[in-house]
Amino acid sequence: MEEDSADPYLPYDGGGDTIPLQELRGSNYAMSNGGGGAGASSSTHLLDLLEEPIPGVGTYDDFHTIDWVREKCKDRERHRKINSKKKESAWEFTKSLYDAWSGWLVVTLTGLASGHTALHSLSVYHSVQFMEQDSTLRVFSTGRSGQWFNFLTCPANIFTGPGPGSYIMNYFMFTFWALSFAFLAVSLVKVFAPYACGSGIPEIKTILSGFIIRGYLGKWTLMIKTITLVLAVASGLSLGKEGPLVHVACCCGNIFSYLFPKYSKNEAKKREVLSAASAAGVSVAFGAPIGGVLFSLEEVSYYFPLKTLWRSFFAALVAAFVLRSINPFGNSRLVLFYVEYHTPWYLFELFPFILLGVFGGLWGAFFIRANIAWCRRRKYPVLEVITVAAITAIVAFPNPYTRQNTSELIKELFTDCGPLESSQLCQYRSQMNGSKAYSEGSDAAAAPGVYSAMWQLSLALVFKIIMTIFTFGLKVPSGLFIPSMAIGAIAGRIVGIAVEQLAYYHHDWFLFREWCEVGADCITPGLYAMVGAAACLGGVTRMTVSLVVIVFELTGGLEYIVPLMAAVMTSKWVGDAFGREGIYEAHIRLNGYPFLDAKEEFTHTTLAREVMRPRRNNPPLAVLTQDDMTLAELQNIISQTSCNGFPVIVSKESQRLVGFALRRDITIAIGERTSFPEFTRDAETFKVFICTFKLTKSVIVLGIITKKNILEHLEELKQHVEPLAPPWYYYKKRYPPSYGPDGKPRPRVHNVQLASPSSRYEEDESEEEVRLLDNSSL
Amino acid sequence: MEEDSADPYLPYDGGGDTIPLQELRGSNYAMSNGGGGAGASSSTHLLDLLEEPIPGVGTYDDFHTIDWVREKCKDRERHRKINSKKKESAWEFTKSLYDAWSGWLVVTLTGLASGHTALHSLSVYHSVQFMEQDSTLRVFSTGRSGQWFNFLTCPANIFTGPGPGSYIMNYFMFTFWALSFAFLAVSLVKVFAPYACGSGIPEIKTILSGFIIRGYLGKWTLMIKTITLVLAVASGLSLGKEGPLVHVACCCGNIFSYLFPKYSKNEAKKREVLSAASAAGVSVAFGAPIGGVLFSLEEVSYYFPLKTLWRSFFAALVAAFVLRSINPFGNSRLVLFYVEYHTPWYLFELFPFILLGVFGGLWGAFFIRANIAWCRRRKYPVLEVITVAAITAIVAFPNPYTRQNTSELIKELFTDCGPLESSQLCQYRSQMNGSKAYSEGSDAAAAPGVYSAMWQLSLALVFKIIMTIFTFGLKVPSGLFIPSMAIGAIAGRIVGIAVEQLAYYHHDWFLFREWCEVGADCITPGLYAMVGAAACLGGVTRMTVSLVVIVFELTGGLEYIVPLMAAVMTSKWVGDAFGREGIYEAHIRLNGYPFLDAKEEFTHTTLAREVMRPRRNNPPLAVLTQDDMTLAELQNIISQTSCNGFPVIVSKESQRLVGFALRRDITIAIGERTSFPEFTRDAETFKVFICTFKLTKSVIVLGIITKKNILEHLEELKQHVEPLAPPWYYYKKRYPPSYGPDGKPRPRVHNVQLASPSSRYEEDESEEEVRLLDNSSL
Repeated sequence: MEEDSADPYLPYDGGGDTIPLQELRGSNYAMSNGGGGAGASSSTHLLDLLEEPIPGVGTYDDFHTIDWVREKCKDRERHRKINSKKKESAWEFTKSLYDAWSGWLVVTLTGLASGHTALHSLSVYHSVQFMEQDSTLRVFSTGRSGQWFNFLTCPANIFTGPGPGSYIMNYFMFTFWALSFAFLAVSLVKVFAPYACGSGIPEIKTILSGFIIRGYLGKWTLMIKTITLVLAVASGLSLGKEGPLVHVACCCGNIFSYLFPKYSKNEAKKREVLSAASAAGVSVAFGAPIGGVLFSLEEVSYYFPLKTLWRSFFAALVAAFVLRSINPFGNSRLVLFYVEYHTPWYLFELFPFILLGVFGGLWGAFFIRANIAWCRRRKYPVLEVITVAAITAIVAFPNPYTRQNTSELIKELFTDCGPLESSQLCQYRSQMNGSKAYSEGSDAAAAPGVYSAMWQLSLALVFKIIMTIFTFGLKVPSGLFIPSMAIGAIAGRIVGIAVEQLAYYHHDWFLFREWCEVGADCITPGLYAMVGAAACLGGVTRMTVSLVVIVFELTGGLEYIVPLMAAVMTSKWVGDAFGREGIYEAHIRLNGYPFLDAKEEFTHTTLAREVMRPRRNNPPLAVLTQDDMTLAELQNIISQTSCNGFPVIVSKESQRLVGFALRRDITIAIGERTSFPEFTRDAETFKVFICTFKLTKSVIVLGIITKKNILEHLEELKQHVEPLAPPWYYYKKRYPPSYGPDGKPRPRVHNVQLASPSSRYEEDESEEEVRLLDNSSL
Repeated sequence: MEEDSADPYLPYDGGGDTIPLQELRGSNYAMSNGGGGAGASSSTHLLDLLEEPIPGVGTYDDFHTIDWVREKCKDRERHRKINSKKKESAWEFTKSLYDAWSGWLVVTLTGLASGHTALHSLSVYHSVQFMEQDSTLRVFSTGRSGQWFNFLTCPANIFTGPGPGSYIMNYFMFTFWALSFAFLAVSLVKVFAPYACGSGIPEIKTILSGFIIRGYLGKWTLMIKTITLVLAVASGLSLGKEGPLVHVACCCGNIFSYLFPKYSKNEAKKREVLSAASAAGVSVAFGAPIGGVLFSLEEVSYYFPLKTLWRSFFAALVAAFVLRSINPFGNSRLVLFYVEYHTPWYLFELFPFILLGVFGGLWGAFFIRANIAWCRRRKYPVLEVITVAAITAIVAFPNPYTRQNTSELIKELFTDCGPLESSQLCQYRSQMNGSKAYSEGSDAAAAPGVYSAMWQLSLALVFKIIMTIFTFGLKVPSGLFIPSMAIGAIAGRIVGIAVEQLAYYHHDWFLFREWCEVGADCITPGLYAMVGAAACLGGVTRMTVSLVVIVFELTGGLEYIVPLMAAVMTSKWVGDAFGREGIYEAHIRLNGYPFLDAKEEFTHTTLAREVMRPRRNNPPLAVLTQDDMTLAELQNIISQTSCNGFPVIVSKESQRLVGFALRRDITIAIGERTSFPEFTRDAETFKVFICTFKLTKSVIVLGIITKKNILEHLEELKQHVEPLAPPWYYYKKRYPPSYGPDGKPRPRVHNVQLASPSSRYEEDESEEEVRLLDNSSL
């Protein structure tokens, strides 16, 4: 949508137009130094240059892609230097120890800080309580003054208060507070930290895959997101706090990584900390440390070595530990919705569980399409937030299931009916004409209360489905986990009660006869709610293992892992049938971030030269020559091209590649030319700073493949191969198909593959391939 | 040990001497086909050749390393072919569907089969029961005949039976059965399936890292291991059944993968199935599906893409589901040692937990060294098994804690004392002079029963420590999980009771005063046992995340994850301080398998040419030329060299690399020369079969680096860098340091790194580097 780019409000959301994607990524350098021995010292020398040559060299611009291999080389070189100095003095030894432990230190600090966001989770809870109590207070101070303090201590009575006057007053106050909180939240976000909106997970995925978004994980984002998250949740919008908490934890990780040069000066190492931080974020958001680690592994991270697994585990441990010390749920448990079911599940129940999985998959596919379609039409962020908040408040109030806090709703839906349960959902007809029937835990006929609850739940389901589509992606912090789980829990509870009543009235069916004894408790509707919640969340996010672990850590229902797994797998398969992207990948595409999904498998066959730039009718590739380039020529090239990096060749004649120089590094070097060691001032010749790698001398530059080129190509392919994928006209516009010299679109050649062996680095390897391409005339 | 190689019993255990390690691995082929377009069709043509050219081409010999990249290329080509044919006919479409689902099918089958090994776990249990009952029967038929049936139904009474005669008879029968079972087990292993011994995990790790051990996962191994595992456990040896169950599950996975050509013809794809199978194995061994997936990821697998994560998850799900249907523990739970603790843990308890972690780390380091030292001295497998079984039985019988089944012991140690607990460990002095004290759950003074139990437990601890060292690695199926956990559980329970008594007698200490109310239950000794078990297992195996997940899935103790994590991390750190290898890596080294640990980080600096073969005084590299080689020359090279692969060059003059041919492929091709397409019969010229890859033409062959070269080099480095590592004289002998032309050991050059960027494929990349090495004179 071209309107998006005109939106001055959130520049990064305007799509890729504002992101200079044309950077050249030179990665996967061959670190060999030619057959001769002479190259060795020069290579080391060049690496030395990167250490502290000029401030700024080796860093990256905003909205640029990092060079993983250069960062890894830098880190290895640093590590080697520290190791070799270690034995020189006690001070150096201490420094090496500090260096070795700084990884653990930074994840500990991150975990501690993330754990304290649990305080934040408490404050969310209390602010909601406060809002309710406050409106209660006001209503009753107008309605029946003098009884303030009674109702202050027991705000639950408010909604059952007598008379239509108090109800309307309540209604008004509910809407008023919702609007106020929503407005405050969106204003704060708009004024202080535009990056603080949304769930943050799509951006964190992009950042972890090696992209730079300055300020996205900064202190302002941290502060504003923490505050506005409370407001957004308090405003009653259909959103959760879990995704934003991951973002907040990553902000903590990013800020702490600046304390340690090992991490602050190395973007690749910093991403290890961020992976650990996102694990800690989920750990505190759900009280699920293992689920957090798996979430980081499966959903968020791009580069996840086993060392990061341990660090993430530790960060999640520390965060969970802090959470436990604060004890937010008041029950000494890490668990948010603690459930204990007293009956096992039976084999025939797999059928409704799989049905719930199908529902979750359908909901996920529908939600992703609808939400993306709506996000493309967004124009007026503040107005939109206010409108959605107003509609939410007005529609939500009459229905008790939509009026209450979503977490509370999920908890109620998960909880099994017991003798102490006073919920409307548990109004069964007692078979013994007494209350003892519950304590025996037998199935029973539903009383009218259950039927009215079912109606209200159905309405709440429709309401939540519609509102969540419009809410996710608003310019306030908005997570998706809790609303998705609520939708699934409602659907699951409805199915559960239906199956339960079926079992009660038809207990002689062969299915029920075999498993359910008459009078025994056979069906647990709360379990269906849990399975439904997992299925819906799975359909939306397409997580599998991590989701199951999070849900069972949430509920402590270890025995019910098989139903959870069945539902989540079904949900993923059904969802994938309608489009392979989860909501986060869809938002990444929507925002035009350069992200290559490591999970995708590329089976198409493309020649590298199909993707390579420059194409035949393009201007020739801008290259630098090694020795004979003057400063004026260099500045000329930089000012005339928009490339973010240039291959360095020996001379125009031989076209042999010797290195790769980033635009930013050259600009900085020109600015500080006096201190730049390879700059010879008198001759005005700038000996190009060859970053990090020195290839074998006989490689000829034919062209370059950037991440953007690959993304464009994939988009083109997708439109040929996947007719089911939603039509991204948006993208078609931005990435036009390539045209041959005759003006017609170039045909795709399908005989040699572009990608790629086996690893997460498949894209990088294909880049290397091309840079190693040889001129056949040689 | 040179004696090992003389051992005719288990050739594979004799070390690397029998393993022809000298194979040449050609991996990481650049798939580009030169700058010209002409290469494209020839490259595809060569790939076609690999499909079904000659039976046997593209397969591997026993004890050889697979070529990951070639396998991945083959698979991609196959996938592409199926995809392109898909639209041709309904039959082809069905075939493509079958192909797409065969991955899920094979993991489902594997999961089902692994789940049925749970039956096996049941049979282990029953066989032990049978042994005990049977000896009971015999004793009582000699001692007090006529009371058979009383004691048949209540065999627990036996050990409290009257008179020394019955005790001695009991003792004798116990030893007799132990010896019989042990002898039967070792005989079966020796006669039918020598690979069925040990835990199998070191070998599975090696296989998954890309090694071929024929028959290790075959049907004989499966059958014999299943049977002898029962016997070994029944013999009362200090071993567990968990590791062997993983091996059994991998056998199932391997056998089922032969049903699907996608997996049977592709060693890399087969390893994906094996990864899933090992997850299923842990899933059934411990009833821990998530732990199984993490175990596969962290400990066993080498190549673990996210797709394998889902498949493993699914296999573990199916296996857990089968386990649940069989319901082996009779409580509708997946959980082996189900524990419920009723008190939370307190912050000050972290100190004893960390102490337990230190103990676990020390035990692990000690165990690894002692066990490896003992394994190197092993000579007479059958005699050894008999001796160890005899000693175990004789020493174990008098102590009730060593006499009982180890799983039962762990269960007892984990269980908290409640009013219904009749164990000796729960004989506390009641404060109320009645039994009500327990139901109030308060701490109490230990009665003499507890003190005698502590003594017995201490003796059991020493016994278990000593016997486990001698038991692990015996030539019967022997797992390490249960004995390690038992040792940790005993130590933990002792510490737990000590802390509990400390809290009882000194409840006015500031620590206890703050947390423990007088009369309230404050310390849970069972929790200490659980933490200790995790710590000891962690010290031995050096697992972290997967271990915590397995233990908490075992026990269902979700709230106690923080203590578990603290203890396991401590244990790992302490253990790593004494040597970075876990027991499985140590056994891999002991057996001389070619395994490059992806977890290790290489910080040393070595020139590629330091590692490269041929060295200066070696004979020149055996190479094949592309076109002008006659059959006689080829056969000559093959008969004169022992290399397992040869670089293919254009001609002797230019030394340009065009491909790589495996010895096995060439031998097969010569044998079937009539059908070999590139063989021109009349000219007797053998146009060399260039497998899979065609490099850019200008690359010159200087030498080759094989996995063996890298391993040798690492061994050499280790002796310089890690003085703490155990002295592998064994290795020093086998891999002598390289000598320069002057006869002195060559100095190490420390200025350019050998390895390696960032991925699991670091070793392969360093291989590529060298093959890409250019002659500087070019």
